[in-house]
Amino acid sequence: VTTVPVDAAEAAAARTLREHGVASDRADRVASVLVDADRRGHASHGLALLPTYAERIRRGGIDPAAAPEVVDTCRPVTLIDARDGLGPVAAWAAAERCAADAAALGLAAVAVRRNNHVGMLAAYRAPFAEHRVVGLITTVSGPSVSTPGTVRPVMGNDALCVIAPREGGDPLVVDLAMGVVACGKVRAAGSRGEPVPAGWLLDAHGRPSADPADLDRGGSVPIFGGHKGVCIAVIVEVMAGMLGGGTVSPLVGRQRERPAEPTGCSQLFVGFALPAFGAPDIAELSTLLRNVVAADAATGFPEDAEQAAWAASASGIDLPDALIEWLDVGVVA
Amino acid sequence: VTTVPVDAAEAAAARTLREHGVASDRADRVASVLVDADRRGHASHGLALLPTYAERIRRGGIDPAAAPEVVDTCRPVTLIDARDGLGPVAAWAAAERCAADAAALGLAAVAVRRNNHVGMLAAYRAPFAEHRVVGLITTVSGPSVSTPGTVRPVMGNDALCVIAPREGGDPLVVDLAMGVVACGKVRAAGSRGEPVPAGWLLDAHGRPSADPADLDRGGSVPIFGGHKGVCIAVIVEVMAGMLGGGTVSPLVGRQRERPAEPTGCSQLFVGFALPAFGAPDIAELSTLLRNVVAADAATGFPEDAEQAAWAASASGIDLPDALIEWLDVGVVA
Repeated sequence: VTTVPVDAAEAAAARTLREHGVASDRADRVASVLVDADRRGHASHGLALLPTYAERIRRGGIDPAAAPEVVDTCRPVTLIDARDGLGPVAAWAAAERCAADAAALGLAAVAVRRNNHVGMLAAYRAPFAEHRVVGLITTVSGPSVSTPGTVRPVMGNDALCVIAPREGGDPLVVDLAMGVVACGKVRAAGSRGEPVPAGWLLDAHGRPSADPADLDRGGSVPIFGGHKGVCIAVIVEVMAGMLGGGTVSPLVGRQRERPAEPTGCSQLFVGFALPAFGAPDIAELSTLLRNVVAADAATGFPEDAEQAAWAASASGIDLPDALIEWLDVGVVA
Repeated sequence: VTTVPVDAAEAAAARTLREHGVASDRADRVASVLVDADRRGHASHGLALLPTYAERIRRGGIDPAAAPEVVDTCRPVTLIDARDGLGPVAAWAAAERCAADAAALGLAAVAVRRNNHVGMLAAYRAPFAEHRVVGLITTVSGPSVSTPGTVRPVMGNDALCVIAPREGGDPLVVDLAMGVVACGKVRAAGSRGEPVPAGWLLDAHGRPSADPADLDRGGSVPIFGGHKGVCIAVIVEVMAGMLGGGTVSPLVGRQRERPAEPTGCSQLFVGFALPAFGAPDIAELSTLLRNVVAADAATGFPEDAEQAAWAASASGIDLPDALIEWLDVGVVA
């Protein structure tokens, strides 16, 4: 692992995308969404995804030239068909439209269908923060999570994120996947040649496993929270799957398993303009909550780990050497 | 415990409310919201709550004559001030308005502030089912839940519910509280003179307890799902607390602790009209999901327990004899 300056990493990623036929402004957007995850301490959703995106472009599962198309807009609702393009391109367009429409109308929703992997949901926080709009974002992905009593992956490692703008500061951001860990964290351990901690992974027969390779051999990540975790996952399936794309995760393709095929994943962005809700003081209320929740808590307040990672990454992000070579970053500290 | 016919239980509850100064149509509404929970197998949110509601009316914490007031409407957003009235009165008005506005506009949100306890969120499913609108409902309540590392109750046993209408059938309903159990289930065990199962309760010093009385002696219900459960709870605090009422659960009063004071709890109702989202077939998609999730799962699909309880309660609901006497139901099987 080597620490790579943020600008150099982003430039190399954008260049790689351009070499794969992605237009320059879109390549910059995808690169910035991925590096954002590296900076927030979630390498699982960072540049480590780019080789998969690139392979999917080469094999046909992602159309690098696809322009997200607004299919139907019944404001405050907009439906976007991503046409199997790069996930972050359509997702960024959706976030911008959702935040702007909510700022104008008080409330807005944007559904994105026929999309590819969008990276980390928290990466789409800027348009919401700029417009003083609370964002609720949900996404469904292909099956990788097992539920209590099942031995195989039955649901996607779907994700749910809230972004709440704070006056004079960064927004409060809470972003989580339905599995006890994101699948990318299992793969990151694999690329480091390390076993995964107990509880992270089951093999294809539903037995506990420490071998990251089991994830792509029919294994699964257990859902968090047992039966209540299933309840949350079904709520996300209704939001991002059924409303977002007329689908559910068992119908969504896994991006690594079938790089030549679209995944058909979908997202739902919902925006709530703070002034339309009486302009609550999110900074004060979230500080109040943090003071009681993190007072003596083992794990801290939900946003703490990401904020610490962000501060620590100002000078650069840590990337595996194989990825640095693949990206041809050209800057090694 | 005696099984009481549904009509007789509802009539006795409505009469009790009228005797406490509640107008007839509102008394009927509150009674039907509570009995609905008994019929869905959640006595914690059923008629067992009525003595508390009645005491709060007598002591001043609930104003039986309060009319929910629409403070501000920036359609598709409506803010309702419940004026410390009976929770289900304002919540039902909010559900009806949210579903009707969403059906007209594609999307709508209704925030309710200065409210009292609203019972079980799933009880508000009918307006959404009638209007073909997916409902997302959240509520915050006073602190009763502890988070990892804390020993005292720091957050409310907040709740989150989705209602997804299915063509030609009952809606898909998923409704859960943030604690490993609803507080009412701890109290129900107490009223039966039974200990609670391991994992349900901590005493005031954060030690595991089996004594239901500890809940109202500074004890707490642990949050579900560990750190990820905290993430979900913070998302609910943003939705129902900050957006719904400009508050968070540490500022909300507990209804049993201070019956003479308003609780100041709040809710957020969000409605998504199915036709505005491409009219997804919820019946087909939810069946697909159920088939993989419940195939060999220990706990079944989230809606199963409630549907079984509902079917079993067609002839009556089981009520503790002390409650039957308090209600003066007048019918004992």
